[in-house]
Amino acid sequence: MGSRDAGWGSGRSFFVFLPGLYLSWLDLAGCGGMMMKRLWQLTWGMLLSVLVSWSARADEGMWTFNDFPSAKVQAQYGFSPSPEWLDQVRLSSIRLAGGCSASLVSPDGLVLTNHHCAHHCIEQVSDARHDYVAKGFLAKTRGEERPCPAMELNQLVAITDVTARIGAATQGLADRASNEARKAAMSRIEKECADGDGVRCEVVTLYHGGRYELYRYRRFQDARLVFAPEFPIAFFGGDPDNFNFPRYDLDFALLRIYQDGKPLRVQTFMPLSPDPLREGELVFVSGNPGGTNRRISVAQLEFERDVNLPRRLLYTAELRGLLGQFQTESAERKRISTALLFSAENSYKARVGRLLALQDSAFFAGITTKEKELRARVNADPKLRALYGAAWDEIAKAMAAFRPLRDRYTMVEAGLGFNSELFRLARLLVRAGDELPKPNEQRLREFSDARLPALKQQLYSKAPIYDDLEIATLAFSLTKLREALGADDPFVVKVLGKSSPRTLATRLVKGSWLRAMNARQRLFDGGQAAVLASTDPLIRFVRDWDPDARAVRKVYEDRVEAPLNRNGELIAKAYFAVYGTGTYPDATFTARLSYGQVMGWREADHEIFPWTTLGGAFDRATGEDPFKLPATWLQAKPALDLSTPFNVATTNDIIGGNSGSPLIDRQARVVGVIFDGNLPSLAGDYAFVPAVNRSISVASPAIFEALAKIYGAKALLEELRAGTNK
Amino acid sequence: MGSRDAGWGSGRSFFVFLPGLYLSWLDLAGCGGMMMKRLWQLTWGMLLSVLVSWSARADEGMWTFNDFPSAKVQAQYGFSPSPEWLDQVRLSSIRLAGGCSASLVSPDGLVLTNHHCAHHCIEQVSDARHDYVAKGFLAKTRGEERPCPAMELNQLVAITDVTARIGAATQGLADRASNEARKAAMSRIEKECADGDGVRCEVVTLYHGGRYELYRYRRFQDARLVFAPEFPIAFFGGDPDNFNFPRYDLDFALLRIYQDGKPLRVQTFMPLSPDPLREGELVFVSGNPGGTNRRISVAQLEFERDVNLPRRLLYTAELRGLLGQFQTESAERKRISTALLFSAENSYKARVGRLLALQDSAFFAGITTKEKELRARVNADPKLRALYGAAWDEIAKAMAAFRPLRDRYTMVEAGLGFNSELFRLARLLVRAGDELPKPNEQRLREFSDARLPALKQQLYSKAPIYDDLEIATLAFSLTKLREALGADDPFVVKVLGKSSPRTLATRLVKGSWLRAMNARQRLFDGGQAAVLASTDPLIRFVRDWDPDARAVRKVYEDRVEAPLNRNGELIAKAYFAVYGTGTYPDATFTARLSYGQVMGWREADHEIFPWTTLGGAFDRATGEDPFKLPATWLQAKPALDLSTPFNVATTNDIIGGNSGSPLIDRQARVVGVIFDGNLPSLAGDYAFVPAVNRSISVASPAIFEALAKIYGAKALLEELRAGTNK
Repeated sequence: MGSRDAGWGSGRSFFVFLPGLYLSWLDLAGCGGMMMKRLWQLTWGMLLSVLVSWSARADEGMWTFNDFPSAKVQAQYGFSPSPEWLDQVRLSSIRLAGGCSASLVSPDGLVLTNHHCAHHCIEQVSDARHDYVAKGFLAKTRGEERPCPAMELNQLVAITDVTARIGAATQGLADRASNEARKAAMSRIEKECADGDGVRCEVVTLYHGGRYELYRYRRFQDARLVFAPEFPIAFFGGDPDNFNFPRYDLDFALLRIYQDGKPLRVQTFMPLSPDPLREGELVFVSGNPGGTNRRISVAQLEFERDVNLPRRLLYTAELRGLLGQFQTESAERKRISTALLFSAENSYKARVGRLLALQDSAFFAGITTKEKELRARVNADPKLRALYGAAWDEIAKAMAAFRPLRDRYTMVEAGLGFNSELFRLARLLVRAGDELPKPNEQRLREFSDARLPALKQQLYSKAPIYDDLEIATLAFSLTKLREALGADDPFVVKVLGKSSPRTLATRLVKGSWLRAMNARQRLFDGGQAAVLASTDPLIRFVRDWDPDARAVRKVYEDRVEAPLNRNGELIAKAYFAVYGTGTYPDATFTARLSYGQVMGWREADHEIFPWTTLGGAFDRATGEDPFKLPATWLQAKPALDLSTPFNVATTNDIIGGNSGSPLIDRQARVVGVIFDGNLPSLAGDYAFVPAVNRSISVASPAIFEALAKIYGAKALLEELRAGTNK
Repeated sequence: MGSRDAGWGSGRSFFVFLPGLYLSWLDLAGCGGMMMKRLWQLTWGMLLSVLVSWSARADEGMWTFNDFPSAKVQAQYGFSPSPEWLDQVRLSSIRLAGGCSASLVSPDGLVLTNHHCAHHCIEQVSDARHDYVAKGFLAKTRGEERPCPAMELNQLVAITDVTARIGAATQGLADRASNEARKAAMSRIEKECADGDGVRCEVVTLYHGGRYELYRYRRFQDARLVFAPEFPIAFFGGDPDNFNFPRYDLDFALLRIYQDGKPLRVQTFMPLSPDPLREGELVFVSGNPGGTNRRISVAQLEFERDVNLPRRLLYTAELRGLLGQFQTESAERKRISTALLFSAENSYKARVGRLLALQDSAFFAGITTKEKELRARVNADPKLRALYGAAWDEIAKAMAAFRPLRDRYTMVEAGLGFNSELFRLARLLVRAGDELPKPNEQRLREFSDARLPALKQQLYSKAPIYDDLEIATLAFSLTKLREALGADDPFVVKVLGKSSPRTLATRLVKGSWLRAMNARQRLFDGGQAAVLASTDPLIRFVRDWDPDARAVRKVYEDRVEAPLNRNGELIAKAYFAVYGTGTYPDATFTARLSYGQVMGWREADHEIFPWTTLGGAFDRATGEDPFKLPATWLQAKPALDLSTPFNVATTNDIIGGNSGSPLIDRQARVVGVIFDGNLPSLAGDYAFVPAVNRSISVASPAIFEALAKIYGAKALLEELRAGTNK
């Protein structure tokens, strides 16, 4: 799919709706923060000197663990990750199902990730009197660790190739039937694999269908908040410095995995290194890049550039304006909307960067040239031509079919027209009632048996829901729905009736009792009958028009998704036939390992040094948001070693979803935590530009220094140091 | 200029800053409202079958009064407007200097325009206890008519060709020197002409420099509000129905011109016709289309499509989100922000329409083909080639130079970074202090002697200024300034210092006493010395960095404006040389006359009938905003003739700035008042598509019916009828 915003059907659809900050992979593109100071002035084309070949160059690549190019790393850096090393890193890496990455850093289940990946949890455990986002959080004892009500953590334990099984299921079928058979086979394979709530299984589509693999995870649903610094230092510099570098952000948080009410004991983890990095040092990043579009066709990229990105940006810009004003209305409104505003600003900036990359004619020409070369080589071979020659035109046709459907699909089915947590819950309940009685393989994918644990966690989350914010975002999105489809569109008329968006949103939010977890549980347990009998206004609202929304989805799946899947697979096979398999697949929010080195870059007229120090934060502070240091920092300043490395730039190839990933050295020690990419890295969605693409981490020495001298987190330090000295 | 958002230097710069709704021509593109229900789905290219010639076809054309194609109208419609007829229409037409059109409809200076053209005045004469926007306004006697504090009206009394004088002043000069000499000559000619405050003179650049004409106006600065209906019926259907048709908007208001404290007596006016129009009937529109881009180069249009429109749309979208939330905060906040929100929504929708037109590949190809043909014919003739052959490439170079300057120019100098009424006043005062001591011809154009009356009216306006709204829009725009240029940009650092945008905006707005008219008068009268001595924080703020802003303007004028002017003139001359002069110039917010007929259009699968009736409004009403009829309408319904024509579609070629224009019949009677174009007309900025481009008016019978049976405006009706029966 060229359009990553069209989330349903991808199996990641839950993320789409969250108005809160589960930092969905949708909104995390390049998540966190970097310094090419003027986003709108970026150019990449000139730097993309050689893009004619698709093979990975320099430190490019988000490699799968079962296909990691150790020999290549050996040749370049003199270190070859062994199978044991790879296993340790994989098992010590954690995926946050909501859209981030993390790592196990102690034998007692301590997990290191970004503050912005835990932001939503920190907000959820706060209330009007305890604002842990603003003030930070430290559990002095394990008893004080606070459950994150909506967080799921996954540990990848096995990978199995199931390409042949999927192939057998779809063989000889036409687009639509093949698309349905593929999904059914996936649900079947996942169900066989997921033997219990403690397991999560996903069939992953790699190379756009060139390969299918079954990923088996241990699933943890009891994560607790251990430590978070104050938001103003976690996101120091705010939106202006986001994606910029030099940077001074303490963007990390610590969670702990619990199992059966006790901290999880693990044998495999990666200790946090107290040592500073050296320039040029080899480093790895293990994490879950959410999605890239490096191997999709030019027709899909054109759609992205001309239709999808601009429209999505306009939606986000307006939402951002709304939230910015909402923030000014009271301290409490500011508190409950900060995570959402961050998410909107972050995705806005990331999408602007992607749009500018695609609008850069030299950059786009580089991409076009790659496709032309592959097509030419396919067409030059009669056998390949017969098999794959038509795939690109078929995709162009599918995108042309998508064009008039796009607004309806994204608004009605992908959720942009109903931007509300309560709505999302209501739709889950209504559809669960309809779907769960069906055989597993015939259900919508997000209701397959293997996905029920995640679904239940969402439904039963105790995370607070704020009426004011719900009404504001729902009224806004209903207005956008009406704007996109027209006031006289039959679906819009059915949804709005004679109400204005705001009147309707107020009535639905105020009238619904779905904010009570018990009410949701009753409806879910009661199944379809309970849903049909419900008088909850939101349930009735969804029930009244959900068949229309399903019809929109079906049209999308048949006319767009099916040919894209079919022909994406053909192009992948064509690629393998022409160039072989020595490359990495587009990111899919699954475990990947990238390698690179500590390195700055050249920007216009000057060199950017690859790291900053704690002292730099004091120099940059103005005393006013977003450049205001917390009081704890000002107090601790005399005691701090101001030369401690703070944020560090490396050449690793990452993208949104990698937030929270451990930065790892040869000894498999965690030397930093990824939280951002630089502005030029935003083009990384489409191509890796080695000269300027950089990822940005919080360096581990800054974590030790802050925990010790600013936050007085003695027990935590002991736990982290015990890991180091094991 | 391809970029109409780059207002300074165009002589229309005042409009750019107004956060209120002087419905600037900048924001009026297609202003008012129509029914092609789904904006995002429009296509024009297929309908633009023959665009290869630049000559006007069908009812296309915004013709100057001194070059009106009467013979063509005679041939097509059997009626030839005589010189006397044209004089009557021109003298009965009124330009609202803030960005609209109007007409004299009684011998006592009664002026008919749109509600949305008077909206700002209606808001200004309201207060927290008297909301005439919401409730409507009717002066029962002339004594009750309320002064509009910031409105200037112009009546065009003479047109003189000054092409030769401008040509002599610039002859033999290079781009930059020529650009400056041209402006100096314009200021000189205008000053000679403007012999008193009652006169306004403007040198108008037609055909992008192919011709220069001196327009001499009578200037009126005392307009008073006579009648306005309730906003909910003036803008019935709100943003969803804006630019749609069928439509049901009573979008008119009545003003009266006063001179020396008494109603202006005129001999020439156009009576309001009580008769309904017939399908196919010939109608004219006399008004001031603000700007079109039908004769600019492809390089300029590409810039508009790829850079300027998308960025401007993102800015507007975010401002719209802010204002939408601001509206919900209190009744008073809603009252003071309604005009501004309307303006934002209107310009947003219009710009989306323009962007979609330019993104339509067939449409854009049509435009490209025209340019190619002209260039080919120029290149085929060695003499023409030597004179004009390089002009297009020179313009492309100027646009390439503009690209990295655009954000800085629009933010710093064109006002998008300082969106505040108080700021605008402060800058006017600071610059007036610097400019007025200079000789007239050396001043920035907006401070030339001929423009001082308009400038003084702005400075001395008693229109209220609302701190809350000022802070919100100023903080927003400062944030956008920082975002566009980067937090570390030296100019940004100079502007913000260590403050956040909101802290700074609050301090400036709360601390400034410029909201008091007396304070402004003192500073203006005191000149540069008073400005330099002022301790007003806003004055000091502007003073501190205005030299930097002027430098940005100078770079823009030298590197972009100068070559655009020079080469635009060359292309115009090339056009005349190849095709002759039988065409109309791009719109310039000056008097134009268009002809056309009452006609619907075909849309996808059905015909749109060319008019609606009063009864239709009752059918469309839902009781909820924006489809809620005023109580006066519901009460009056039994008495109304529901078959009265309400809104009417005609083929006249109009664009933003035409709002309020009279729709005129052969007898020079006003048969309607233009308030909108349909969605397909939004492409009219670039090309007229005869099959679907329609303008929309309030039909005169609806005005009579409403005044008589809904508003009981007896005296007004008598005055209007006396004109009809003269």
